[in-house]
Amino acid sequence: MTSEQLLLELTLNAWKGQLKRADQLFAGFTDEQLQAEIAPGKNSGQYLLGHLTATHDRLFELLDLGARLHPELDAPFLSNPDKSGLPQPTVAELRQYWSDVNAKLADHLAKLLPSEWLQRHTQVSPEDFKKEPHRNKLNVLISRTNHVAYHLGQLVWLRK
Amino acid sequence: MTSEQLLLELTLNAWKGQLKRADQLFAGFTDEQLQAEIAPGKNSGQYLLGHLTATHDRLFELLDLGARLHPELDAPFLSNPDKSGLPQPTVAELRQYWSDVNAKLADHLAKLLPSEWLQRHTQVSPEDFKKEPHRNKLNVLISRTNHVAYHLGQLVWLRK
Repeated sequence: MTSEQLLLELTLNAWKGQLKRADQLFAGFTDEQLQAEIAPGKNSGQYLLGHLTATHDRLFELLDLGARLHPELDAPFLSNPDKSGLPQPTVAELRQYWSDVNAKLADHLAKLLPSEWLQRHTQVSPEDFKKEPHRNKLNVLISRTNHVAYHLGQLVWLRK
Repeated sequence: MTSEQLLLELTLNAWKGQLKRADQLFAGFTDEQLQAEIAPGKNSGQYLLGHLTATHDRLFELLDLGARLHPELDAPFLSNPDKSGLPQPTVAELRQYWSDVNAKLADHLAKLLPSEWLQRHTQVSPEDFKKEPHRNKLNVLISRTNHVAYHLGQLVWLRK
C-alpha cells in the first residue's frame, strides 16, 4: 500500500466509523424516543435523523455521483429548523431513507480512485479550483465526517 | 504539492478548523456561563473545557512529542465524570491551559514530516504496527478532530 492509499484509507475509515456509531445509536432508540427533544427546546432525534440523511443525500450531487434519492428532505430538515410545521416522513420511513442513502453512497464512494478523490467537487468552479486545490471531494467527506460527530455528541444525550 | 502532501494538509486543516471553532465558542462564553450545565444533568461547559484540554495534553506522549503540560487534569476531567467533587482549576486557569496546550501542540505538529505522520503512535507496539499500519499518528489526530466536533455539538447548546 502506498502512502497515498494509506492516507486516503484513514479518512474513509473515519467516515465509516462515524456512520457505524450513528447506525448503532439510532438502532438503540425506539421511534417514540427519537421523536422526543434531546434537551428542552432543542432538536428532536427525529429531526437530526432527517437532517443527517438529507445532508448525506446531497453528497450525490456535490461529489458528482449521480442523482440523489430524497430531495424532499431538504425543506423540513435543512432549509428549516425543527418544529417548522412542514410535513415530515415518519421515523420508520426516515430510518429506511438513512439506510438507503448511506448504502448507495458507500457503493459509489468505494469506486472512487485516489486521483478522483482529489478532484474538485461540483460547487467549486474549475478556475477557483486551480487556486484552491483543497476544495476537493475528499475534503467534503472530511467535513461531513465531523458533521456526523457533531450531531452524535447531541444524540447521545437523547433519553432512553 | 504532491498528492501525499495535499492529503495530509486536508487532515491537518480539519483539526485546525475544529480547534478554531472551539476557541471561538469558548471565547464567547463568560466564566459563569461555562460553569453551567449544558442540559439538565449533563456536563458543564467547564468540564468539557477541561476534558478537551486534558485529551489534547495527552497527545504529547501519544504522538511522542515530549512531556505533557498538565497531567493533573486527568483525574478531574478524564478518569472521572463531571461533579466528581475532585478539585478543579478555575475556568480562567483552564482557558489558559487550553490555549497553552494547543499552542505548544501546534508548534510540534507543524514540524512533523509526512513520513513521521504515518509512523506508529506510542500505544501500539512495533509488532502490532506491522500488521496494523493504520495505527499511526495521523489516525490519532483524525480521531481527536472528531472528538472535538462531538463535544462542539454539545457546547453550542450552552445557554448565553
